[in-house]
Amino acid sequence: MEALKERIRQEGQNLGRGILKIDSFLNHQIDAALLAQVGEEIAARFTAARSTRILTAEVSGIIPAVMTGKVLGLPVVYARKHKPITMMEPVFVDSAPSHTKGGEVLLMVSPEFLHKGDRVLIVDDFLASGKTIDGLARIVQNAGAELVGIAAVVEKSFEMGRETLAHWGVPIESMAIITDMSDGKIELA
Amino acid sequence: MEALKERIRQEGQNLGRGILKIDSFLNHQIDAALLAQVGEEIAARFTAARSTRILTAEVSGIIPAVMTGKVLGLPVVYARKHKPITMMEPVFVDSAPSHTKGGEVLLMVSPEFLHKGDRVLIVDDFLASGKTIDGLARIVQNAGAELVGIAAVVEKSFEMGRETLAHWGVPIESMAIITDMSDGKIELA
Repeated sequence: MEALKERIRQEGQNLGRGILKIDSFLNHQIDAALLAQVGEEIAARFTAARSTRILTAEVSGIIPAVMTGKVLGLPVVYARKHKPITMMEPVFVDSAPSHTKGGEVLLMVSPEFLHKGDRVLIVDDFLASGKTIDGLARIVQNAGAELVGIAAVVEKSFEMGRETLAHWGVPIESMAIITDMSDGKIELA
Repeated sequence: MEALKERIRQEGQNLGRGILKIDSFLNHQIDAALLAQVGEEIAARFTAARSTRILTAEVSGIIPAVMTGKVLGLPVVYARKHKPITMMEPVFVDSAPSHTKGGEVLLMVSPEFLHKGDRVLIVDDFLASGKTIDGLARIVQNAGAELVGIAAVVEKSFEMGRETLAHWGVPIESMAIITDMSDGKIELA
């Protein structure tokens, strides 16, 4: 997606240790028009997957997931990292290390909104180590649903998330791929 | 907004102590089409406000805020409750009690995305006690920006948030107003 790559080139900041700051359009301030385009592109790449549901994780995955869900006409469910009191019944729980906050985060999804037989497309903001998406995929499996695809807004291919997720055997699509962030670089594929 | 009220009537659950569970279309699963309609309605009610920026708080405020921002062509900024490592510089910080998670939550906004002279429309999922929105409004004030309006998807009028926020002297619009949740009721205005 050229529009997205251009914004990363112009506004992305390499903070070192593989941390890309794109707070000006995705992770703190949101450019709704750009994210709507991202949603259209993800939807176009996964029309053949015949998904019945989109799964993401709070917080920043929600926007591209909702924009994709709007195009495909699908419900979007976001895994909670902090349990609200409205989540009372037993829930699916998994965990993943947090890239930008440190420590381990929980991923919690209510069985009310993820069912056996669902065909699930996972959409997230970043595909880095792949561990958050791997956790979401395990939740899909535990629910007896079928994972049909994985989409990310930005992939950092040098963190090998694609390899981590290969065992799921589903298509993986990223709207922009960063191949190298060593020495302050932001190299786009 | 009749479509929203109808969904609250059909799917809303009164969990007691003023807690409304609408996880099936806003707070865990998201109905993107309904939220797009909500965004259009908020945008329509605030066209005269000539906002330059929308401010919300993570997590569930983000979706109606982005849908509104898309219609009005405005940047959307969401206050962070947990500090990511991409947030390094001094930030505006305020706090509010959490309704659904207990305790106090922080609200953090980077001065990169909120400027003196900005005309800010606050959009959030709930207007209950008004304390979260009050915290956001103080951040707007501290940034030297001007608050021009407040929009909520669902207002619980019996928690008096509208009264708490009256001192800001700006229009307050809610897409659905719940007037009574005593004795298991969900009374809509």
